[in-house]
Amino acid sequence: MRESEIIELFLKHLKKQGDLPLGDDAGAIRFGDGWLVATNDMLVRKTDVPDIMTPEQVGFKAVTMNVSDVAAMGAKPLGFLFSLGVPGDMEESYLEGVARGIEKALEFYDIAVLSADTNETDDLIIDGIALGITKRLLTRSGARPGELVCVTGDLGRALAGLLVWKKGVEVPEGTRNSLYEKFLNPRARVREGMALSGVASAAIDISDGLAKELHLISRMSGVAIEIRSSSIPIHGSVFEAAEFLGMNPIEIAIASGEEFELVFTLPPELVSGVDFEFSVIGRVVEGSGVYLDGRPIRPRGWEHLASNEIFK
Amino acid sequence: MRESEIIELFLKHLKKQGDLPLGDDAGAIRFGDGWLVATNDMLVRKTDVPDIMTPEQVGFKAVTMNVSDVAAMGAKPLGFLFSLGVPGDMEESYLEGVARGIEKALEFYDIAVLSADTNETDDLIIDGIALGITKRLLTRSGARPGELVCVTGDLGRALAGLLVWKKGVEVPEGTRNSLYEKFLNPRARVREGMALSGVASAAIDISDGLAKELHLISRMSGVAIEIRSSSIPIHGSVFEAAEFLGMNPIEIAIASGEEFELVFTLPPELVSGVDFEFSVIGRVVEGSGVYLDGRPIRPRGWEHLASNEIFK
Repeated sequence: MRESEIIELFLKHLKKQGDLPLGDDAGAIRFGDGWLVATNDMLVRKTDVPDIMTPEQVGFKAVTMNVSDVAAMGAKPLGFLFSLGVPGDMEESYLEGVARGIEKALEFYDIAVLSADTNETDDLIIDGIALGITKRLLTRSGARPGELVCVTGDLGRALAGLLVWKKGVEVPEGTRNSLYEKFLNPRARVREGMALSGVASAAIDISDGLAKELHLISRMSGVAIEIRSSSIPIHGSVFEAAEFLGMNPIEIAIASGEEFELVFTLPPELVSGVDFEFSVIGRVVEGSGVYLDGRPIRPRGWEHLASNEIFK
Repeated sequence: MRESEIIELFLKHLKKQGDLPLGDDAGAIRFGDGWLVATNDMLVRKTDVPDIMTPEQVGFKAVTMNVSDVAAMGAKPLGFLFSLGVPGDMEESYLEGVARGIEKALEFYDIAVLSADTNETDDLIIDGIALGITKRLLTRSGARPGELVCVTGDLGRALAGLLVWKKGVEVPEGTRNSLYEKFLNPRARVREGMALSGVASAAIDISDGLAKELHLISRMSGVAIEIRSSSIPIHGSVFEAAEFLGMNPIEIAIASGEEFELVFTLPPELVSGVDFEFSVIGRVVEGSGVYLDGRPIRPRGWEHLASNEIFK
């Protein structure tokens, strides 16, 4: 069964949902005068961990991918839990690296580990869970025509780094370092998410690529989204790598997953209320679908660009 | 590496812990004038699921084992999350059964599913997470000399059922039904846990067997525990099965895991404040260790009884 079929099957049966239905970055229930946000995301070594990643980076990433979902809801991260699946022949030094990486991430995001569980499995699995709280919830369904579409940071380095590494492409060291920083050490936008809680109308974190995330906002908000390629923040190293790879840097940027940047929408009059740097990449209009420079784009992520030629 | 070594390794590195240190039934952080309780427990088909279990029972159990930990903290369950690991060749009908079982459990415990995630893994994995709230936390470390040691329900049917099934022992149908009810359809003691929050000094749920759980209370509270075998509530069907199995029913009862009954301690003067049925099986005294009819017992669970002769 494909992932989408499994999700559909479960959604058909799961009627007891929270105050926010399933399908956003995280789940949420009303709690006092705010919301308790909870999310979980499983990391499976075979499919989610490139060999080049150190165990510290793996542990850190297991925290980041969950904290990022909490941030995308506009919430302050409260705590982290994890379940480990460990193969019988796993080396102690690898596991110790994972433990160090998790602890480093807990310190970086200033959250506590609340619970941990370990089991024997065939492949290394880290199922991470993050909790958070917020007064106002940022969902994927709040975008309205007339609003701006914005993104934090820059896009494309995660995928460009993966491609350069997988294809063994020789790029200048400075370029490689810049790409690998985002590819191997991504960080969740916690401060930005919390700040957006007060002003943005919708938000999502980029885990599967800008194109996919924009389609989710478009569909769940019932609006169309228009993006200008010239406004997408793309790091110079992505242009350089694209040259070496013989690819279009714009395509890399919109397909690049695990960026953990936040895409958000907000009314133009509230732009001045945002106290961090971001890029305005387009606008929300009436209709449906996502358009890049006027042409409709599909909700395709990095698998489309990468699967055939690079992964076996 | 053994599970205990993995736990030790992680405990060494994880310094950022919650308001309640790791090592209880669940984690907890202060929240308003109460506590937010969170726990996670991974179910791996290969090691945790006997073939005789239906997929509905597997789904229900993945919820129960987590809700039980929340109940053992004296908390009211708030919500459930789960991450699925699904093998590529898994049958849709099996997964659909798991989904139905999870939904049935959500309805039984009256909690909502907040978030779900799916991934491809080699074996079926359900990592469940439960959240709860309570004004007063029930830990494993609050038992004091002079208090009574009590337990809900009856003990032994879960293990006796497992043994009868694994060994293919022919027992009368009524006996088998009684054993299998607990072995295949255990239920968490939610109402009892919430009621105990106001009166008990310590609590734990029986997931690894009474002997192990008593040792945890003893060690974490810094007390000794004395139990009388004649006071342990053992169902008639366990005595019958023990006869067929050629085993001691007391040993079965104290080694039986996944009972999801609650063991708790409370001052004698508060007994009248408990509004549900329970058994007083012993008392808390000064010292260390756990004693059955005056003789020290080891923290051994069902693996000890079962591993050599029954499991390959």
